[in-house]
Amino acid sequence: MELQIAAAKIPKYALRESGDTLEMIERPHGGLSFVLVDGQHTGRGAKQVSNLVARKVVALLAEGVRDGAAARAAHDYLYTAYDGKVSAELHIVSIDLVSETIVISRNSHCPALVGDARSLRALDDASAPIGVHRRMKPIITEVPLTRHTTVVVFTDGVWDAGARDGQKFDVAAFVAEKLREANVGAPQLADAILARAIELDRGRPNDDTSVLVVRAVPRVGSDNVRRLNVRFPID
Amino acid sequence: MELQIAAAKIPKYALRESGDTLEMIERPHGGLSFVLVDGQHTGRGAKQVSNLVARKVVALLAEGVRDGAAARAAHDYLYTAYDGKVSAELHIVSIDLVSETIVISRNSHCPALVGDARSLRALDDASAPIGVHRRMKPIITEVPLTRHTTVVVFTDGVWDAGARDGQKFDVAAFVAEKLREANVGAPQLADAILARAIELDRGRPNDDTSVLVVRAVPRVGSDNVRRLNVRFPID
Repeated sequence: MELQIAAAKIPKYALRESGDTLEMIERPHGGLSFVLVDGQHTGRGAKQVSNLVARKVVALLAEGVRDGAAARAAHDYLYTAYDGKVSAELHIVSIDLVSETIVISRNSHCPALVGDARSLRALDDASAPIGVHRRMKPIITEVPLTRHTTVVVFTDGVWDAGARDGQKFDVAAFVAEKLREANVGAPQLADAILARAIELDRGRPNDDTSVLVVRAVPRVGSDNVRRLNVRFPID
Repeated sequence: MELQIAAAKIPKYALRESGDTLEMIERPHGGLSFVLVDGQHTGRGAKQVSNLVARKVVALLAEGVRDGAAARAAHDYLYTAYDGKVSAELHIVSIDLVSETIVISRNSHCPALVGDARSLRALDDASAPIGVHRRMKPIITEVPLTRHTTVVVFTDGVWDAGARDGQKFDVAAFVAEKLREANVGAPQLADAILARAIELDRGRPNDDTSVLVVRAVPRVGSDNVRRLNVRFPID
């Protein structure tokens, strides 16, 4: 088996910098964690907030701190740093090779999607952002790391795409349909979700828009090589 | 312009886990840093060392600490943790959007390669690993972030490939030839280097083998999307 992970990210229209931050870190006992943070508002201020939260979370995960504890710590840190006045939405998706599960931690009003070609469910239990309430707890879901399992998380640029024009993006229906295509890869799925969100916003993303896809697939080729590819457009 | 970054990584033959660690982190003032660490020896012990060093470096870079200071701090930390008895080779490659440069920091006997289709140079000033000497300084080189500039760094699994059979890998000649091919992408280049190293080791890598390629290319397509793709084989 192999895991394919793909992320795609674009700033709100006419902004240079996205207020969303995505970071990846290796887990000390095996596996990888992905942290996707949407800072309150947009632009430079949002970026500073999401950067601060993401780096706090990855630093803790890298030291072996569990996902729930890392999310709580990031909350406390943000709450202290900005006196409870600035919020952030936080998603952590971990591939935990010890428990052989994918762990999804949500502090976001955006659902996460989990499923395969036959069925897809939305993880949409009510969940508060971090940074603004005295207490908070992340909503944590653990799913077995089995072949064809796919996890999709995204920020509200995807969730609210098209809302301006009254044709809100039905992300779950879109993903369910894509997963019925044999051999859809994580990069293709992430790109398709982002492209559809941008299309619904008539080519001008109404918010910072990010999507992360984690997909377990049968081994493609026999090699044991780990690969990382990044595309980073600059002016 | 866009940056393509590609890494490929394989453990020593018959080992489950590579002692090399690669991490990526966003720089708070803009840009990305990649940290490649080769822990002394192989297997679980080497992995713990390289993990410790890599997470220390990325945590500091994420807070805005400069590359040289992060390398020195990681050295001090490793020296203290293991009482000067354990070494690691450390490479940091940063895309710094403030200075518009690529910053290469080496604590490794492996050279780094910098060039384009016309010329390639090896950064091979004598440089000591971290962790074992009371004092150390990284060798830092800054190159302008211009179109077609390519930076290649690798661990000694690449550098010493084929040495067992007396046909040592001439990495610089191999990369120079590849860069003369029009439109060679970072992923193709990283894969080609890794494949050649494995071939020279007769299909059984003699050491943990990792390569990182950073390449500035003309914008492919007009979109402004940042993309991350990971392939992670599991048993």
